[in-house]
Amino acid sequence: MSGARRLVECVPNFSEGRSRDIIDAVADAVRRSGPARLLDLSSDPDHNRSVLTMAGDPESLRLATLALVAVCVERIDLTRHRGRHPRMGAVDVIPFVPIRGVSMQDCVGLARALGEEIARRHSLPVYLYEEAAASTGRRNLADIRKGEFEGFPAKMASPDWKPDFGPDRVHPTAGCVAVGARPFLIAYNINLATDRLEVARSIAAAIRHSSGGLRCVKAMGLFLEDRRQAQVSINMTDFRSTPVHRVFEMVRSEAARFGVAIAGSEIVGLVPQDALIEAASHYLRLEGFDPSRVLERRLEEDDV
Amino acid sequence: MSGARRLVECVPNFSEGRSRDIIDAVADAVRRSGPARLLDLSSDPDHNRSVLTMAGDPESLRLATLALVAVCVERIDLTRHRGRHPRMGAVDVIPFVPIRGVSMQDCVGLARALGEEIARRHSLPVYLYEEAAASTGRRNLADIRKGEFEGFPAKMASPDWKPDFGPDRVHPTAGCVAVGARPFLIAYNINLATDRLEVARSIAAAIRHSSGGLRCVKAMGLFLEDRRQAQVSINMTDFRSTPVHRVFEMVRSEAARFGVAIAGSEIVGLVPQDALIEAASHYLRLEGFDPSRVLERRLEEDDV
Repeated sequence: MSGARRLVECVPNFSEGRSRDIIDAVADAVRRSGPARLLDLSSDPDHNRSVLTMAGDPESLRLATLALVAVCVERIDLTRHRGRHPRMGAVDVIPFVPIRGVSMQDCVGLARALGEEIARRHSLPVYLYEEAAASTGRRNLADIRKGEFEGFPAKMASPDWKPDFGPDRVHPTAGCVAVGARPFLIAYNINLATDRLEVARSIAAAIRHSSGGLRCVKAMGLFLEDRRQAQVSINMTDFRSTPVHRVFEMVRSEAARFGVAIAGSEIVGLVPQDALIEAASHYLRLEGFDPSRVLERRLEEDDV
Repeated sequence: MSGARRLVECVPNFSEGRSRDIIDAVADAVRRSGPARLLDLSSDPDHNRSVLTMAGDPESLRLATLALVAVCVERIDLTRHRGRHPRMGAVDVIPFVPIRGVSMQDCVGLARALGEEIARRHSLPVYLYEEAAASTGRRNLADIRKGEFEGFPAKMASPDWKPDFGPDRVHPTAGCVAVGARPFLIAYNINLATDRLEVARSIAAAIRHSSGGLRCVKAMGLFLEDRRQAQVSINMTDFRSTPVHRVFEMVRSEAARFGVAIAGSEIVGLVPQDALIEAASHYLRLEGFDPSRVLERRLEEDDV
């Protein structure tokens, strides 16, 4: 028995969140591109930006991404684009995320090959970021995007910002694009049985990496008006190194210091099966649990 | 978005555990029958019996089961069969188990239609059991099988044991077959941090249904020589009504009464994804968690 299906997720962000016509054209192009699956599409008119979630094997995602870029370059004009979210291109960012049967290095390879191809096809400057970055100064997407579309002609005058692929000048209507590889991001919120915002803020400060907490964890305290509850809102940027149960238990322990209990929690968006199996395995103290014992996973392997 | 893939498991037991030739012929017939997947095959020479685990949609399992029955009826002769496990037929028992997107009633319908068809094709007496039984007296497989192959000519003389389908006389070489529908069975063992067998026995008595414990739970205490640990060995016959975490927590609580901790646990064989997601959801206090938020499950649904 061997060889689970190879699965990559790709979450392109493009700079149109209002025109139903253009958003539908992008989604249709992805659907018609081949076997890649379109799992989610959410558009924010205020940000004037859409986020598309798709999954498939590396080759099907290459085809889907090429189709998406072609439509966005043709239909989106950054010189007329206004929105609250920072952006530098018609297709702003394309991250590849290993899900199963592929390594991070495979996704880095995919990002680089795709970056080279869209630069060539559309004369688009391409910046590689996060795990795909060619140097540490290019890992952080916010650093790359700084200056946005309008500031890029000046920014690209510096040799520091020569793109990884494509011409040394911004595309007149489509700007630039960042292509990268990163671990799966889990958005996880823990609601506290208290209306005291300062408790959530204190817990967020205790668990997040930036102030000394857990690696690969970002967190902030919020107040939920409708529930009258404080919430610790968390982004987990690598659930394999810092698993969900460890975050949950640290929040429980920090909350107890204030005499506060956990009211509940919620996952925003999608979560990989492995993250929940890992949590079950922890709490049930499963010894050496092999995920191929999950019936549905066995179905993806070869027959015995 | 709608319609996850319809998935049924089927676990036929047939009366050959020694001849590699015959066992391979049965497995090959299943593999060649169509899209049904052969997930596991385990043969016990001592029992002289094999258990085959397969999965697929209802129609593909119907084809796979028909193929399996045809080979078993042709190749297995019960008049020459000896083995430690009780049996009444060449194909002894065929249970259908709903996994996803199908109801128990769907599996009952599948069992009845298949029972009628194999009775007609092979002149085999067929007894429906568990959820597919036509009366409560026929629910229990052990009651049906009592007397075994050799005792069936006498047993079938009574109108009480007229089969649900097929002739009123046992097949000369293939005997009879029981076809049924039941929930998924999880085999789950919890190892205790003690070498005292009586602690495991006392916990087993506390949690099992037969002596007043949890519904749909069977349990016994064992001693693991190699680990020098006592073990509570558990069969969960319906994890949706009695979930894994409830069993685990009751064992933990009963063990604490003896000052004993849980050393670990193990799942034997396969476990449905839902059982582990349910455990993660319990311990992480997920609010209204929808399993379609699991990325891999979303892949089985329609595109957005």
